[in-house]
Amino acid sequence: MTRRTLLGRLGLMGGLSATLGAMQALGLTNGLIGTSQAEGLAMLPPGVGKGTHVVVLGAGIAGLTAAYELEQAGFQVTLLEARERVVGRAWTVRDGDKIEMIGEQTQTAKFSDGIYFNAGPARIPSFHQGLIGYAKKFDVPLEVEVNSSRSAYVMGENGSKIRMRTAINDMRGHIAELLAKAINQGALDQSVTAADKQKLLPFLKAYGDLGTDYAFAGTERSGFGTAPGAGVTFSSAGSAVPMDQLLANERLPMTLFEDNLYMQATMFEPVGGMDRIHAGFDRNLRRPAIRGAEVTKVRHTARGVDVVYRDKASGVVDTVTADYIICTIPFPVLATIDTDFSPALKKTIAGVVYDHSNKVAFESPRFWEREQIYGGISFVGGPTTLIWYPSAGLHSARGMILGCYSSGPNAAEFAKRPIAEQIAFSRGVIDRLHPGHGGDLVNGIAVNWHKIPYSLGPWPDWNAGSANGRQEGHIDTPEFRLLQQPDGRVYFASAALSQTPGWQEGGIQSAQGQVIALAKRVAAQGANRAVLGSRDGRRAA
Amino acid sequence: MTRRTLLGRLGLMGGLSATLGAMQALGLTNGLIGTSQAEGLAMLPPGVGKGTHVVVLGAGIAGLTAAYELEQAGFQVTLLEARERVVGRAWTVRDGDKIEMIGEQTQTAKFSDGIYFNAGPARIPSFHQGLIGYAKKFDVPLEVEVNSSRSAYVMGENGSKIRMRTAINDMRGHIAELLAKAINQGALDQSVTAADKQKLLPFLKAYGDLGTDYAFAGTERSGFGTAPGAGVTFSSAGSAVPMDQLLANERLPMTLFEDNLYMQATMFEPVGGMDRIHAGFDRNLRRPAIRGAEVTKVRHTARGVDVVYRDKASGVVDTVTADYIICTIPFPVLATIDTDFSPALKKTIAGVVYDHSNKVAFESPRFWEREQIYGGISFVGGPTTLIWYPSAGLHSARGMILGCYSSGPNAAEFAKRPIAEQIAFSRGVIDRLHPGHGGDLVNGIAVNWHKIPYSLGPWPDWNAGSANGRQEGHIDTPEFRLLQQPDGRVYFASAALSQTPGWQEGGIQSAQGQVIALAKRVAAQGANRAVLGSRDGRRAA
Repeated sequence: MTRRTLLGRLGLMGGLSATLGAMQALGLTNGLIGTSQAEGLAMLPPGVGKGTHVVVLGAGIAGLTAAYELEQAGFQVTLLEARERVVGRAWTVRDGDKIEMIGEQTQTAKFSDGIYFNAGPARIPSFHQGLIGYAKKFDVPLEVEVNSSRSAYVMGENGSKIRMRTAINDMRGHIAELLAKAINQGALDQSVTAADKQKLLPFLKAYGDLGTDYAFAGTERSGFGTAPGAGVTFSSAGSAVPMDQLLANERLPMTLFEDNLYMQATMFEPVGGMDRIHAGFDRNLRRPAIRGAEVTKVRHTARGVDVVYRDKASGVVDTVTADYIICTIPFPVLATIDTDFSPALKKTIAGVVYDHSNKVAFESPRFWEREQIYGGISFVGGPTTLIWYPSAGLHSARGMILGCYSSGPNAAEFAKRPIAEQIAFSRGVIDRLHPGHGGDLVNGIAVNWHKIPYSLGPWPDWNAGSANGRQEGHIDTPEFRLLQQPDGRVYFASAALSQTPGWQEGGIQSAQGQVIALAKRVAAQGANRAVLGSRDGRRAA
Repeated sequence: MTRRTLLGRLGLMGGLSATLGAMQALGLTNGLIGTSQAEGLAMLPPGVGKGTHVVVLGAGIAGLTAAYELEQAGFQVTLLEARERVVGRAWTVRDGDKIEMIGEQTQTAKFSDGIYFNAGPARIPSFHQGLIGYAKKFDVPLEVEVNSSRSAYVMGENGSKIRMRTAINDMRGHIAELLAKAINQGALDQSVTAADKQKLLPFLKAYGDLGTDYAFAGTERSGFGTAPGAGVTFSSAGSAVPMDQLLANERLPMTLFEDNLYMQATMFEPVGGMDRIHAGFDRNLRRPAIRGAEVTKVRHTARGVDVVYRDKASGVVDTVTADYIICTIPFPVLATIDTDFSPALKKTIAGVVYDHSNKVAFESPRFWEREQIYGGISFVGGPTTLIWYPSAGLHSARGMILGCYSSGPNAAEFAKRPIAEQIAFSRGVIDRLHPGHGGDLVNGIAVNWHKIPYSLGPWPDWNAGSANGRQEGHIDTPEFRLLQQPDGRVYFASAALSQTPGWQEGGIQSAQGQVIALAKRVAAQGANRAVLGSRDGRRAA
């Protein structure tokens, strides 16, 4: 029986089987999964998982994705979640919710009606089509997350503040003026052709809103000097902020934040809180997550795997017997669980260093909207980094204002302060940027992700000690590569195992990839069984 | 009796009366109103309008504002509107609505559930606090209008298209590289101090995402070459578009559109259509607008004014007798009405030239969202100018896509084409930018504002023949000044009489100003009457 015939039996015909063959080759040779998971999932043989039971550990975005896609492919799935909530780090804190952190007194959120706080991820870029796709599939309404407002500020170390519109447009004016000057002096004749020059000069005039002599003397783009009104109340531009004054503001480069590809308009947030997407997953599982199930032990058996968990409410210890595991438990947590993973893998898991990340949130009357700030971010530097204004509930009376979102060494230091001090410090920074409004802030909450049970950090710092491993640069360490591969019947899926550990999309990509890898293995074994009879066993696949 | 005592009687005490006095002086000397109308309105003597009847002509934003504020100040108001709808140009077209245009066959809108088309204004800048304030007051929910998406395009004459993110960030890269080069060559040592240089060079590196040698070799800000995925699927930047290729795109300067102060994030739209604000006004009037009331005659009488109107439904002609008029009827329409205005004023009204403006809208499945365009604008040049993607109903199946929004001479020419040709042309441009999707567009509608009865144009072109009088530059002609002043008992209010004729905020500012002017006149007359008895008469105030 040829391979083609075998694949045909599994329901893979023609072009599909050829493509899947190629993907299998890729998957089986290096265990690494690319980005075409949606296609890959669509190409799985219908019902490939029939008769196979998979335990998914952890109901964050990776676990939920794995469970959902496994069910779609016909697997029986048991999804175990240690917490009482199904969200992982995409935690939406609402009135009455308790913030439990290791070594800290429990905080209880107090929010007015409709106000909530996304303690984890809080925005979705347009190109994260995996997450957006699930939101659509599960009828979770998304609204625009205003990630950049021209009315927000950059604040320098000395407390001086410049509106985004002024920082962006005045700096552009100065740059355009200087470049036009250099070009008109002939200083760049080696680099700019005469033809380009003829087009570039008028463009620079538009770019910087320069005068006829290519001088920058301020622009209405940076705000009005006087606003236009009825009758002959003319508008005028404010005077330009001198370049040295702009450059003196240490946060001036943050005017470019909005052009980071991950931060570009249009961005989204689920209406009502990030966890609405996760609730959508859970609603659409044939067997929703088992909550309060703390995994204590993982063992391979002759024909499968046993997962032992403790039902936290009752204290009852139970065992799930299954064929495979997809484990999405964060590695610092997994390191504390009794497993029979290979020594190399155990060592790797124990060695993964996690980053720090903090958020501090307050409820407040929307004083910032009286400054015409509707959503967006002010950059303030220091240990709290930013002030992030809510996109939800614009124009309503009260809202959640984020007074800190930091990561890295800055965040590690900040998290050492007592919670009350973290909150007081954040309040102080908000009051510095918005004088007199520190007192408007009520019910402050601080979340230090490194102290959150079952998370123990926001994402791994794969390049710990070197460059930022979060968004930019490639993640490629031997440990990272090892964890892409199954250990016997256990697969690992997590945003931590993608190139974007700080984004939910990474978790989706990783989970989809491991579902495909597992499904292909099951399909191949089924095919083998059909010819040779079953011979699968531990680590034999 | 001193003036202070008189004002005291009217309820104006201390600082308030002093301020009002100053404002009165301003108002009475030149009839021109500044921008502080909200304060001005708040300072009107409570009940100043009691016993005075004002007819407001036209229920667009200016007329609605005038009627509402007059009622708040105690006036009796009759609001006459020729149309069956209360919106003026802020017209939201919904399924079944008829588009009647002079010289054209009536079009009937066909839209699926929830889809609508703002044929007039469609966005509200953050700083238009008058309009935003009324929306809040009337509980009209606003949602974010995404005016700029990094996924939209600029399309050159030759049909070549560049994503906004690429056009913006690659051009910035080239500009930063060139300026860094000039600075490093010492070419700008006369203009940039050594201290500035030290700060400017690293800023330019961040600005353009330059390499260590200040060379621009592409940036992930402009989009991925390969997108990051699970495992070792690394991200990479695309290669940079050469500068000459960027400059060859005639629409490159439109990358700056989003930094026009009127276009800056955060912008808004009322949920469900622009006319929701106008409905909010009407709901909050003690005496809502009388619809279908076509004004045919205006006459001053010995003690007031008579307004004759025809009830269009019944044909009955009626006369309203009142003390004053605030007229918001567009001047080309007003020029056709029988009035007893002064000959100079009549000549002025007849001479106001109105601009042209066209919109073409379609219903379509949201193919643009599959290109990750969520709201925002692609600039295409030519007679249709742009393609504007809807911010309403993001992620739903179908939506309204705007295939044309133009004004000026371009629009005047385009409006001469048959409606079917306007629609076909717009469809063609959309298909050029989004190949294969012209056929997705159904139920095209064209609106040529110059042909819309009771509007006859979008806004005056006060500087007709010279610069654009719409947004930038000052409007200050003798005609414009004359219309700021009352003719006897008739006041004129309109966005046309503000510095922003193309924005609803201008209409609000103008209307509030005229309400204040009228209220002050009534207050002053009341004070005079209290001392000297009534002696008011036609044009005697």
